[in-house]
Amino acid sequence: VVTLAQLGERGLIRRVAAMVRAHGGPPSPHGPGDDAAVLPDGTVVTCDVLVEGVHFRRDWSCATDIGVKAAAANLADVAAMGARPTALFLGLVAPGNVAVDWLDELTQGLVLESARAGAHLLGGDVSDGGQLVLAVTAVGSMDGRAPVTRAGASIGDRVLVTGPLGWSGAGLRLLREGRRDGPFIDAHRRPRPSYDLGPVLAELGATAMIDVSDGLASDLGQVCIASGVSIDLDLQPDAGTTLEEVMGGGEDHCLVATVPPGVQPPKGTREIGRVVAPRPGTTGAVTLRGEPVSGGWEHHR
Amino acid sequence: VVTLAQLGERGLIRRVAAMVRAHGGPPSPHGPGDDAAVLPDGTVVTCDVLVEGVHFRRDWSCATDIGVKAAAANLADVAAMGARPTALFLGLVAPGNVAVDWLDELTQGLVLESARAGAHLLGGDVSDGGQLVLAVTAVGSMDGRAPVTRAGASIGDRVLVTGPLGWSGAGLRLLREGRRDGPFIDAHRRPRPSYDLGPVLAELGATAMIDVSDGLASDLGQVCIASGVSIDLDLQPDAGTTLEEVMGGGEDHCLVATVPPGVQPPKGTREIGRVVAPRPGTTGAVTLRGEPVSGGWEHHR
Repeated sequence: VVTLAQLGERGLIRRVAAMVRAHGGPPSPHGPGDDAAVLPDGTVVTCDVLVEGVHFRRDWSCATDIGVKAAAANLADVAAMGARPTALFLGLVAPGNVAVDWLDELTQGLVLESARAGAHLLGGDVSDGGQLVLAVTAVGSMDGRAPVTRAGASIGDRVLVTGPLGWSGAGLRLLREGRRDGPFIDAHRRPRPSYDLGPVLAELGATAMIDVSDGLASDLGQVCIASGVSIDLDLQPDAGTTLEEVMGGGEDHCLVATVPPGVQPPKGTREIGRVVAPRPGTTGAVTLRGEPVSGGWEHHR
Repeated sequence: VVTLAQLGERGLIRRVAAMVRAHGGPPSPHGPGDDAAVLPDGTVVTCDVLVEGVHFRRDWSCATDIGVKAAAANLADVAAMGARPTALFLGLVAPGNVAVDWLDELTQGLVLESARAGAHLLGGDVSDGGQLVLAVTAVGSMDGRAPVTRAGASIGDRVLVTGPLGWSGAGLRLLREGRRDGPFIDAHRRPRPSYDLGPVLAELGATAMIDVSDGLASDLGQVCIASGVSIDLDLQPDAGTTLEEVMGGGEDHCLVATVPPGVQPPKGTREIGRVVAPRPGTTGAVTLRGEPVSGGWEHHR
């Protein structure tokens, strides 16, 4: 018997996507695979499950921080499509002995971060269960714009980023070392995506966009594969962070977009690289000043 | 310390709703409290968490049935607003040792039931965890119609239902007795809501609508409280089901609507009662031929 552990999460998602396609497929090409799904009417929907011990620890983050981060991760996925976040929903599984005060603070975090994104916590469900699980669904609207997928990056495009990179990874390292405060740990506990820059970059003609969740190299690697390009980065880690944390730390939840070369980077963004031609015979990859980056997804075709 | 077990699930939902209101509230009156939330653009969203051992048992239902039922419960909530279901999303938490074949069958159930509702499985997320959890989000569109809430039932309205009542409860009783097949057990494992009747009843001017999830008495009791009316039922349990199963079994997931007295019940519906004036000084209640029904929510004001 093949188990989920053997197949892996990405493997399961590919299998589900294939099954959906076999049944006539979704009505738009933006189903499983991008940051969020886009319905024909321009509604954008994404969901994440966050499991205690896997995605968060109650001894490393207070309930408000956990709520803020759960909301931010999903609202950033909505913004990364070029959409305006509108609503958030929480499916909560919790043991009966969880304190109501803790749940109040969790809700507070979800409400606060939704408000920061211009969205509202509009509903949810709660059930008894042995392990704490947050299932967060975020909804947004394209407001008539075309969605910005991972597949449109063109050779020559600039690569823009909307926030600090590697701070969350550095914060996680410091938490593991026993530290409990400081700017990197704050960034790990409470990412602050610039949601409004998602629609702004879409209006400016962004050709591809993602949020940094798994790690810059891996996330941009997905853009390379989907767009059939390579991306050459030119950046320095911020003081106190390592190159590994910038490239592989993830959970920064800032937006990264490719825009045509003539587009001036809007306020709040900075250029970190360019879209270049993939090496012949490969799927494209992320490089740093021409050198391959670990996790940057180059495969022979 | 007050715990979730002491507060209860309804208590927590009331607390969250109060916190949302305190932060400026949702942009429409249809936030927490109805079958589904309705966004200002007419997008309808609802989510449920289903936990193994609480909401389903792998030894009582095959994976396909569990998928069908998880989808049906959420898609019925969308239809009960008078909306057309469009999309389904699955957040899955599963132990690594779950067989991929089981997950394929679960997906199959979600895909099949989505197709029956005219919707598509469009995305999701998966995580490792100790206990199997399905977090299902269903999305729909009002297509320009006004949403049908629980709050509009008027004295004199007819009460219409779109499917069999008490069959799921009878099936659960038979499963507990050790039986493993038959029409009631089938109905318990795979509810078959008439999704298309949601928009049809909305177009006909339905004044309130719900799906039967907790139990007819409890669900109609919510309509009574929200609308400030009582509902007097006139029905007989189907052969093989008990009155308790009809009134309190729940999980039938058929739609129940109140419509103005001049509306002819459309094909696929039947009349099971009338909306009447509440007894003076009470919140309204569900009665059966004038006699109070257990769980039907009459409280002194």
